[in-house]
Amino acid sequence: MNPNTDWIAAVTFDADGLIPAIAQDAKSGAILMVAWMNAEALSETVASRRAVYWSRSRKRLWRKGEESGHVQTVSEIRLDCDGDVILLKVEQQGGIACHTGRESCFFRRLDGQANDARWTITDPVLKDPKLIYK
Amino acid sequence: MNPNTDWIAAVTFDADGLIPAIAQDAKSGAILMVAWMNAEALSETVASRRAVYWSRSRKRLWRKGEESGHVQTVSEIRLDCDGDVILLKVEQQGGIACHTGRESCFFRRLDGQANDARWTITDPVLKDPKLIYK
Repeated sequence: MNPNTDWIAAVTFDADGLIPAIAQDAKSGAILMVAWMNAEALSETVASRRAVYWSRSRKRLWRKGEESGHVQTVSEIRLDCDGDVILLKVEQQGGIACHTGRESCFFRRLDGQANDARWTITDPVLKDPKLIYK
Repeated sequence: MNPNTDWIAAVTFDADGLIPAIAQDAKSGAILMVAWMNAEALSETVASRRAVYWSRSRKRLWRKGEESGHVQTVSEIRLDCDGDVILLKVEQQGGIACHTGRESCFFRRLDGQANDARWTITDPVLKDPKLIYK
């Protein structure tokens, strides 16, 4: 029996064979992070229901949480109209998605008007990264 | 008086001078769409508080809603830890972000297990695109 891979034909990978994937907290709706997937990472995510990305810096599969323990359990996978962005709804183990020890990677907010705008860090560090990555 | 552009120095644009921007409904938390911005689009978004993207197909600024009327009023702008993804919290005029006439571009959900997975359209068309783009 051959696995049905028609579903992956609807996914448009870029020139590097990658597609951005948004991880959204399934309960709160908070956007936790954006990372990249290749076809293998996406297929493994579908099969294992744990988020697997492609690390562009390390050039290898990155099973989210493999070092930190901050695994993402995937409850839903969505695709946008152009087929070139993936959305994962996840349960974030440990409540920390960001390597800085914060819940979300989007911890900076632009404050002020156009002529005096600046980024404000709005979210607390929940765990010291030194304790996350030993 | 020179405008302060230090904030834009924290933004990492890719080799094409672009950064992906996620539009999230500020109230419901629904992810509406992902599009691209160049520095000009981002600056204009900050100044006008209306989402302005860079259309990769048309190779010009795309003031969201310029044809459809489906303007996005921006209440918050966030940046991720690597500085290479923008998150906009928006009020979506008309309740439709997608060119297909749906609320969100992420209207396909992957159902089934790995060996029989398929995309299911889960969201209704709220307005016929023929009536949106005349």
